[in-house]
Amino acid sequence: MSLEQLSALLKEKHVKCPECGGELGPPQYFMTMFKTSIGPYGEDPAYGRPEAAQGIFVNFHRILETMREKFPIGIAQVGTVLRNEISPRQGPIRLREFTIMDFELFFDPAEPNCPYLDEVVSEEISIVTEESRSKGTEHATKVQVGEAIKRKVIKAPWAAYFMALSKRFLTQLGVDAQHQRFFEKLPTERAHYSAQTFDHEIELDRWGWTEVAGFAYRTDYDLRKHMEATGEDLRVFKPYSAPRIRKTKSIKPNHQNLRKTFQEQTGRIADLISKDDPEKLLAAKKAGQPVKIGSYTVSPDCFDVVEEEVKETGTRFLPHVIEPSFGVERLLYTTLEYNLMMKEDRLILGLPFNLAPIQASVFPLVNKDGLQKRATEVYETLIADGLRVGYDEAGSIGRRYARADEAGVPLGITIDYDTLKDDTVTVRDRDSWNQTRTPVGTLASTIYTIVKEGFNTPK
Amino acid sequence: MSLEQLSALLKEKHVKCPECGGELGPPQYFMTMFKTSIGPYGEDPAYGRPEAAQGIFVNFHRILETMREKFPIGIAQVGTVLRNEISPRQGPIRLREFTIMDFELFFDPAEPNCPYLDEVVSEEISIVTEESRSKGTEHATKVQVGEAIKRKVIKAPWAAYFMALSKRFLTQLGVDAQHQRFFEKLPTERAHYSAQTFDHEIELDRWGWTEVAGFAYRTDYDLRKHMEATGEDLRVFKPYSAPRIRKTKSIKPNHQNLRKTFQEQTGRIADLISKDDPEKLLAAKKAGQPVKIGSYTVSPDCFDVVEEEVKETGTRFLPHVIEPSFGVERLLYTTLEYNLMMKEDRLILGLPFNLAPIQASVFPLVNKDGLQKRATEVYETLIADGLRVGYDEAGSIGRRYARADEAGVPLGITIDYDTLKDDTVTVRDRDSWNQTRTPVGTLASTIYTIVKEGFNTPK
Repeated sequence: MSLEQLSALLKEKHVKCPECGGELGPPQYFMTMFKTSIGPYGEDPAYGRPEAAQGIFVNFHRILETMREKFPIGIAQVGTVLRNEISPRQGPIRLREFTIMDFELFFDPAEPNCPYLDEVVSEEISIVTEESRSKGTEHATKVQVGEAIKRKVIKAPWAAYFMALSKRFLTQLGVDAQHQRFFEKLPTERAHYSAQTFDHEIELDRWGWTEVAGFAYRTDYDLRKHMEATGEDLRVFKPYSAPRIRKTKSIKPNHQNLRKTFQEQTGRIADLISKDDPEKLLAAKKAGQPVKIGSYTVSPDCFDVVEEEVKETGTRFLPHVIEPSFGVERLLYTTLEYNLMMKEDRLILGLPFNLAPIQASVFPLVNKDGLQKRATEVYETLIADGLRVGYDEAGSIGRRYARADEAGVPLGITIDYDTLKDDTVTVRDRDSWNQTRTPVGTLASTIYTIVKEGFNTPK
Repeated sequence: MSLEQLSALLKEKHVKCPECGGELGPPQYFMTMFKTSIGPYGEDPAYGRPEAAQGIFVNFHRILETMREKFPIGIAQVGTVLRNEISPRQGPIRLREFTIMDFELFFDPAEPNCPYLDEVVSEEISIVTEESRSKGTEHATKVQVGEAIKRKVIKAPWAAYFMALSKRFLTQLGVDAQHQRFFEKLPTERAHYSAQTFDHEIELDRWGWTEVAGFAYRTDYDLRKHMEATGEDLRVFKPYSAPRIRKTKSIKPNHQNLRKTFQEQTGRIADLISKDDPEKLLAAKKAGQPVKIGSYTVSPDCFDVVEEEVKETGTRFLPHVIEPSFGVERLLYTTLEYNLMMKEDRLILGLPFNLAPIQASVFPLVNKDGLQKRATEVYETLIADGLRVGYDEAGSIGRRYARADEAGVPLGITIDYDTLKDDTVTVRDRDSWNQTRTPVGTLASTIYTIVKEGFNTPK
C-alpha cells in the first residue's frame, strides 16, 4: 500500500488519534537504519549496519579459501549494530546501538545433515510452532531435538543443532528450561530472507517472553543476491569421488562441403554454424533436411556432429545458511535477572565463574601483623595464574564477604593468623557460604577444581 | 579565518589548482565526523563517535562510586570509532571505521606521581621533543623514563609510565627499540584538550614513521566541560587524614535591638541582614558605624558576629587525566609486518604465542594405522586444556609444517608410530624448526613451559 493509498484510507475511514481524538497528520516513511554520508563533501550515502551478517557473506569466499575449502564451514562475528528503533525506551532490552553475535553456518543443501546432531539428539526443547500459532494459541510443545527434525517441525538439522546448544547455553547462564522457549515466526513475520525462523525467548520478570537469539534458515538468499549484484561466482566447488566423463555432442562446420556450395562465403557461414543452436542443427542432421542458418539454406552435409568426452572433477553449488544470532545486552540482562537472588537477608549476584568480572577476592582478616603483605602476595600469585582477582581490606571480614557476594565474586580467599603459621587459607563459596581450608601452594588448582566440580568436592 | 576571508585571499593571490592550473571552487567546510539523525522522522541530529573516551568521562563518577572511590583510577574501553577521513586509501592504516583502545587514568593533580614508576624508571625510550622539532629537526633523544620526568621532557609521570609500558608492549609485538619513537606534538598540532601529546610511532616499510598510539595529557578539560554543561559535580572527594576544624564568622540579626528601632518591621530587616554581604556588616561592626541595608540605615548593635566551628572531613578536586590510546588495526598491521620473515626459502609468520589464532597444530604423520584417531584425541585434549588448536592431515608432513609456519602456528605436534608405542609426541618449533619429544600426558604443561621459557629449555 502506498503512502497515498494509506492516507486516503485513513481519511475515508475517519481514523482519529486514539490518544486525543484529533486529526492524524499524513503518513510518512520511517527509516529503520541510520543514514549518513561519506566523503569530504558528504557525496556518498551510507547506512549504519543493522546486522553483522553481511560482512560475513561478502567475505565468505575469501574465508573459505583461507580455511582451505573445508565444508561445511561456520563463520562468526561479534560487533556493534545500529537500528533506529521506534520505541527504544526499555532499558538494555531495546537499544538503538547494541552488540550482536552473528554466526553463519554454510552447508551443502544436498547434504543437509549436521554431523554433531548425536550430541544433542535427545535434548528436550519447548517450541511454539507456526502451526500452533496459526490456530491462535501460544501453546509450547516439548519435543526432543531428534524428534523435531523427524517430524519436520524444524526444517534444517543444523538449525535444530544450534537451537539445542542455545538452550544449553542459556541454561549455563542460569535460566531453567521452563523459562525458555523457541517461538516460530509466522511467514508474515519472518524476514524476507528466511525460510523458517525461531526466536529463542526467555521469560523475564518485567518484559515477559523476550527474544535473546534468533535462528533463521537464510537458504542461499544472501549469497545468491550478492552473486546477482556483482557477477562474482560465490558457489563452492564439490569434487566428485572420482572424475566423471561426460559425453557431449558438438557441431563442426564441414569446410570442404561448404566450399562446394558457397565458395567464398564459406568462412562466413562456417562461423554462423558454430554460433547456431546445436540442438536445431542436430535435429536437421538426423532428419537429413536442409536448415535455415541466418539468411542461408544449408544442406546437412555442410556440418558434422562430433562426439567429445569432457572430464569433470566436481560440481559447484550455492551453500545454504543457518544463522544463529544473539543479542549480547539481552543475554547480559537475562544473566543478571536469573542470577540475582536473596539468601537470608542478603543479596547475592550468582554469576557463573567464567562470567564474573572478579572471580576471587583476597581478604586479609585484619590489617596488621603482616596479614596484608601475605594477602597481597597471594593476590598477585592468583593474577599470575590467570585469574581475575580482587583485593579488599576495608571494613570487617563479614562486611567484605557481603560486599563480594553482592558484586558476584564466586570465591573469597581469607588470609588469617593460621596462614602465617601453616600457609593455608580459607576459601569461601559465595552461593553456599561454605568454607574450606587449602594450602596456598595449591590454591589456583583448588579453585579450578571447585569451578569444574562444584564447591563441595575440592580436592 | 572565515570561508569568506579564505575565498577572498585565494582570489587576491590568484591561487590556481596545482594539478590542472584551473580556477578553484569556493572553499567549503569538511565535516570529519559522520552525521546522522535519530528518531522516527529523523528529528534529532547525532554523530558517530570519533573516540571512545567521552563515554568514559560521562560514566566516570558512576564507575568511581562502583569501585568504592579508590583513587587514582583507570578506566579502559575498546570499541569502534568513525572518522570521515579525507584520504582513507592506505589499507588498514587509515580507515573510516577502526577499533580504538582508549584508556583514561584519573589522578589528583596535587599528587601527580605514579606509584608504579619504579618498574620502568630505567627503561630507555626515544623522544623527538617539541624543542627539537621547533628547531626544525626530527632528531630523537634517547632517554631513560626517570630522567625524562626529572628534566620535564615528559610533564606527567603517569604519561611517562604508560609510554614505557607501550614501548615494552610494542617490543613484545616484535618491534625492536630502534624502530620505535615518541614524537611530541607541537602546540599547533595538539588537540584542543591536551597540555602535552606524544605519538608512539613505529617505522613501517611502506608508510614510514606511523602513529600506533597517542599519549595525551588531557588535564581536567573533559570533566570540567561536562561539569559546566550539565551542572553535575564531577569532583572527587578527598578525605583529610584527620577532620579539620575551620572557624568561620557569621552575622546573626539581634532581634531584641532591632525591635527597639524598627518595631513591626523587625522580621523584614532581620531577613535582609541574613542575606546581606557578611564582610560589609563585619566591617561596620568593627567600625561601630551604622550601615545601609536595603533602604534602611541600621545601627551595628542590631546584629551580632557569631564565631562558629565547621568540621571538614575532606576536600574536593577535579582529577587530571592521562590518556593512552591505541589503534588496533595499526597494531595488527605492525605485528604482521614485524613478524613476517623468510627462513631459507620459506615464509614464516612469527606471531607471538598469545596472539596466534592457532597456537598449536596436531598432525598425524600418516593417515592410517590409527594415527588419525590418536591425533584427534590429542587435539581434543589440548582444546580442553584451553589452547587454540588446529588439526591438519592433508599432504605430506613437510608440507603441513610449511603451511603451519606460514599461518603463524607456533607449535606443531606430530603423532607417529612411536606415539602408539610409548605415548610420546614430537613438538616442533615454528621459528627454529627444532623438535623435542614429550609424553602426551604432560604435553599441555610442556607447551606452557615452552611459551614461558622459550623452545630450547622445555622441561
